[in-house]
Amino acid sequence: MKPLKVALLGCGVVGTQVIRLIHEQHADLAARIGAPLELAGVAVRRLGRKREVDLDPALFTTDAESLVSRDDVDIVIEVIGGIEPARSLIVAALSRGKSVVTANKALLAEDGATLHEAARAGEGDLYFEASVAGAIPLLRPLRESLAGDHVQRVLGIVNGTTNYILDKMDSTGASFTDALEEAQTLGYAEADPTADVEGFDAAAKAAILAGLAFHSRVTAAEVHREGITDITATDVASAKAMGYVIKLLAICARSDDGRSVGVRVHPAMIPRTHPLAGVREAYNAVFVEAESAGQLMFYGKGAGGAPTASAVLGDLVAVARNRLARTRGPEESTYASLPVHPMGETVTRCHVALDVADKPGVLARVAELFAKHDVSIQTVRQEGHGDDAQLVIVTHRATDAALTATMEGLRELDIVRAIASVMRVEGDD
Amino acid sequence: MKPLKVALLGCGVVGTQVIRLIHEQHADLAARIGAPLELAGVAVRRLGRKREVDLDPALFTTDAESLVSRDDVDIVIEVIGGIEPARSLIVAALSRGKSVVTANKALLAEDGATLHEAARAGEGDLYFEASVAGAIPLLRPLRESLAGDHVQRVLGIVNGTTNYILDKMDSTGASFTDALEEAQTLGYAEADPTADVEGFDAAAKAAILAGLAFHSRVTAAEVHREGITDITATDVASAKAMGYVIKLLAICARSDDGRSVGVRVHPAMIPRTHPLAGVREAYNAVFVEAESAGQLMFYGKGAGGAPTASAVLGDLVAVARNRLARTRGPEESTYASLPVHPMGETVTRCHVALDVADKPGVLARVAELFAKHDVSIQTVRQEGHGDDAQLVIVTHRATDAALTATMEGLRELDIVRAIASVMRVEGDD
Repeated sequence: MKPLKVALLGCGVVGTQVIRLIHEQHADLAARIGAPLELAGVAVRRLGRKREVDLDPALFTTDAESLVSRDDVDIVIEVIGGIEPARSLIVAALSRGKSVVTANKALLAEDGATLHEAARAGEGDLYFEASVAGAIPLLRPLRESLAGDHVQRVLGIVNGTTNYILDKMDSTGASFTDALEEAQTLGYAEADPTADVEGFDAAAKAAILAGLAFHSRVTAAEVHREGITDITATDVASAKAMGYVIKLLAICARSDDGRSVGVRVHPAMIPRTHPLAGVREAYNAVFVEAESAGQLMFYGKGAGGAPTASAVLGDLVAVARNRLARTRGPEESTYASLPVHPMGETVTRCHVALDVADKPGVLARVAELFAKHDVSIQTVRQEGHGDDAQLVIVTHRATDAALTATMEGLRELDIVRAIASVMRVEGDD
Repeated sequence: MKPLKVALLGCGVVGTQVIRLIHEQHADLAARIGAPLELAGVAVRRLGRKREVDLDPALFTTDAESLVSRDDVDIVIEVIGGIEPARSLIVAALSRGKSVVTANKALLAEDGATLHEAARAGEGDLYFEASVAGAIPLLRPLRESLAGDHVQRVLGIVNGTTNYILDKMDSTGASFTDALEEAQTLGYAEADPTADVEGFDAAAKAAILAGLAFHSRVTAAEVHREGITDITATDVASAKAMGYVIKLLAICARSDDGRSVGVRVHPAMIPRTHPLAGVREAYNAVFVEAESAGQLMFYGKGAGGAPTASAVLGDLVAVARNRLARTRGPEESTYASLPVHPMGETVTRCHVALDVADKPGVLARVAELFAKHDVSIQTVRQEGHGDDAQLVIVTHRATDAALTATMEGLRELDIVRAIASVMRVEGDD
């Protein structure tokens, strides 16, 4: 049987593992696909670097453009990351009728339309399971297993770095800075942690998940995004005292009328009894709620060389089988074309701690302000007294716009000395 | 676009929901498939029965054989269950080139080979996601997402009825009989609960999972099976006291040398900190351990009309797309042909409680017997004294044959008055 030729773009942590698996599982892959795989070349930035792979040096090249254009290449795997040159190389490969497997969440979330368009035109496959939640099979279940159901909400922990940091803060009482430093020492966080701690990475994944779940097109720019850099040890401790844990969540949900979707990434308090509360260290987990299926959860390693390579290889087997059968996998499905509504229309519950003057009538004036903005209060508790007096309020569901207006109003009240913390509450409705 | 015609065999709890979804999601399904679906007929045992579906009465027929043979039928959905007439009808449909979606675990586990052979010959699809763990996408991830990885072990709770019973026993201290009765009242258990409580249902699912995970053919008859009818409130309470919970597990694992697989269903003690310990009521959850992906968990509703119908519809969309594209999904993959080894070769840990005579030298004699059978003891604890003296022993990993021989030896020891309980321990290695 004629081998299928694979070009690999990138030979970092993931690329190295992809090469290892293609070699170690050679016989199994051939049996599962129906033809052997052959590595046609590996594009790298610099030649001659010491790499942890046992590969004929002649296979390495710095000319990625030529590699993806070679007539004998059937499938291109892109694990470089970032927007360019990844986009140009993927488009070049797809335009020439090759199939592409990519782990590039940033590119898919910024400009997936261009890639999908190129795949359609070239009649090749574009698979990207590894772009969200690493080894966890999530995109295929959403795209295929739930194709006959009506997904209502996707809610998950999709960034391992921030989950590691928040978990450490929760379990040891560490500050954000100390927990981040530990994560960096252990290799869970980059030297420049911005993409993770500011929620950019999770926002890209949320855009991809929302697009698949709701058969629409969503870009990272449309995702409401808040990071975890402002979370203090005090926030974490008070959440803990109330039976909650703070997690960075990616949430994609249909609006109540079903005509739009909300897509957001922000820290939130969830009850410690919620299954996502038990997701520790750098693990990922995603809840999917569908009309008929009910609640489903997917859990596993969201990052790392081998787990990500496992997802890449699963896609590689699928596109290889498709090529042999001269067919294609499911195309991008955007028929529903639901718009993303502004964050102001998103409905959530909120936990607010206010430093207040300890005198009669404070609660009445605060309650009046919430009522004025149509925000209904579920519980209110006064803690401490004198200069330490604090009102802790948990609201019922209200629009983000109403909650924001309430916070602005509170800031102007003379009896409110400071808003000590504001945090959305999820997972207990 | 010409509609794809669907014949439905069975109109019970699942069939009713399948009809509802085909109607309610009609536009979405057409958009996702690329052509509308049309119900060609519904085969039932008796006509004229009142049913909770809004359907043209002319579509109902008692002549299932004619229905599956009709030239205009493209896809057959089988939700009758049981071996016959389901097998003959599925084979008839596949032989005529139709694609089949089935939820029939018993049939797949008893005689999957015949069905797969008919699918190959007829060049149609045979999909069966709904046969294991209801709505949880599990077979597609195993068959496709992990196609480039090396699955080591599948370990899960795949029967909701027994999980409900064991959970009630654990949380309320109820006896097996009382918990079963409650499950029956609530509709979680059948009037004749044998298939569930004796592990037959879980064994069929284990056979299907093992076949997919290890690219081999496994039948229900090869699965070692023990039910939960002998579990007492005392067993549950002592497990609880030691930080364990008793679950009915389906376990499919490669042998240490990788040349065979063990497939078994039995109650086992798992640590309360294990994620499967938190699976309550009638929920299902399955752990998959793969070489590169690491540990994955899938969680959700394992039974019920709507969840099972969700899985059926996902398959329906897939086979419909395949028919339009004139292609087929992945075939049965059995190239590895790993044999199932006898239970005696399976390696597990074991928890044993012995009623013993309270006199010097008892522990020495018991320990000597374990050593004679090469079973190494991890912990031993003496509880009570006099007539209530009990030795509680947890072993290291040993073959089931050695453990069985040890139990036989213990029964013959004069100082052992009775073996109060024997239970395997899983999930803490």
